Amino acid sequence: MALETRARFTDPAELRAEIRAGRWRGTTAGQAAGFAQANLVVLPRDLAFDFLVFCLRNPKPCPVMEVLESGDPIPRLTTPTADVRTDVPAYRIYRGGELVAEVSDISSDWTDDAIAFLLGCSFTFEEALVDGGIPVRHQEVGCTVPMYRTSIQTRPAGPFHGRMVVSMRPIPAEMVSCAVQITACLPHAHGAPVHVGDPATIGIAEIDSPDYGDPVPIERGEVPVFWSCGVTPQSVGLDARPEWMITHSPARMFLTDVPNRELDVFKGRFLGR
Amino acid sequence: MALETRARFTDPAELRAEIRAGRWRGTTAGQAAGFAQANLVVLPRDLAFDFLVFCLRNPKPCPVMEVLESGDPIPRLTTPTADVRTDVPAYRIYRGGELVAEVSDISSDWTDDAIAFLLGCSFTFEEALVDGGIPVRHQEVGCTVPMYRTSIQTRPAGPFHGRMVVSMRPIPAEMVSCAVQITACLPHAHGAPVHVGDPATIGIAEIDSPDYGDPVPIERGEVPVFWSCGVTPQSVGLDARPEWMITHSPARMFLTDVPNRELDVFKGRFLGR
Repeated sequence: MALETRARFTDPAELRAEIRAGRWRGTTAGQAAGFAQANLVVLPRDLAFDFLVFCLRNPKPCPVMEVLESGDPIPRLTTPTADVRTDVPAYRIYRGGELVAEVSDISSDWTDDAIAFLLGCSFTFEEALVDGGIPVRHQEVGCTVPMYRTSIQTRPAGPFHGRMVVSMRPIPAEMVSCAVQITACLPHAHGAPVHVGDPATIGIAEIDSPDYGDPVPIERGEVPVFWSCGVTPQSVGLDARPEWMITHSPARMFLTDVPNRELDVFKGRFLGR
Repeated sequence: MALETRARFTDPAELRAEIRAGRWRGTTAGQAAGFAQANLVVLPRDLAFDFLVFCLRNPKPCPVMEVLESGDPIPRLTTPTADVRTDVPAYRIYRGGELVAEVSDISSDWTDDAIAFLLGCSFTFEEALVDGGIPVRHQEVGCTVPMYRTSIQTRPAGPFHGRMVVSMRPIPAEMVSCAVQITACLPHAHGAPVHVGDPATIGIAEIDSPDYGDPVPIERGEVPVFWSCGVTPQSVGLDARPEWMITHSPARMFLTDVPNRELDVFKGRFLGR
């Protein structure tokens, strides 16, 4: 699937306004460069504690950027002018673990006990890789990154458990060390890779048949490098069969006002203090 | 108050066994060098989510090392052979925000909905400062670190809100930059200082009259450096007047099995994956 990633917006607030007005339903990849985008998960309050503990026990797939107050749709810490009910291009609504609707506004589905989680996104580290001179294959090809279910068990918390989903980028062998270092500095965007090399070691039998996204070619001299993927919390969340759960639709992320360079829980003025 | 900090134990499990047997009621400062000690907070499940969100929004005073499962006293991630009901030298039990008892075992107070939080401790960064050749005054003097209530507002979450408590160490001016860098590398032990210099700026009127702990002399050429303090979550927790809350007693910490050098959520085998 070819994606429209031409950069039309530089300001996240401007694109959020377009989305809210219903004029932008596509991917947010490549938009508002330099600002962190986020995975969105919304759950009822009675599951929120266990889900948050799951995220803390599995910080690579589930890097927590912000947890909103019960029933509050405003991300007051990272993006106080936004509303998570209207500012994402497309949402998926699940009931009992089954997808029941894909919508562009969840205002009428919102409840007083809804709790929204914003989790870091790989777009941040892909930008850092490209800035560091490291090629990102699926961007070159113009498709979605390949993602795989692995044999790596996440650490369970309450009803949440399951296997880690990873994304793969082929990296020239001489650049692997550099790619690890660049992404290690971005723990709020999945951090360093979880695996470098042989896919079979982590339970991936067919590298050309990803479970999500599109296959990409691995050239001679390149090593497949695997990062924890933001699909993990969605998949683990759904396996717990919550009464309801809402997420963003793939590649249609929530745009925060946090500059990627401040996306460090202990340094930036947004997340660390 | 002079503290007994002679190092008698090198293995945290060995000291935990002594504590559990009732043979060690004193401070844990200086014991089991190289291993992280932790602040303990236990709350009923209905407050646990908001308290955890408070910790995430205030990572410097409240660096989360581990959150235990509901009703489970075993820290399965960091210290699976321990039991937080028996392995701390002294506990404080509060009801409605008031101290009602100080005990050496909380087994009979434990409930099915008790949730224990282990939060990082300044002993870790003090060890790193000393290893880096930076003097730690209250250790030289043999007293408790001076702590102060400040005008710095924490970020609220649910019923939890209030002002940050900080600890102060006088650092020779030429070593301040080094002290910042060393502690910045330990985000799970309060991280970098929150303030360097003039105490009045953060609402401290009398540097010689700390709100907790003991005063220490600041010599000519030294700068008072302030770090977020683990007393903050206790003070904020009590201000919320929970039906009940249990904490460790000051300087009588829980000893984890996590080496300080692995106390990084994104690197160590204990906390990061």
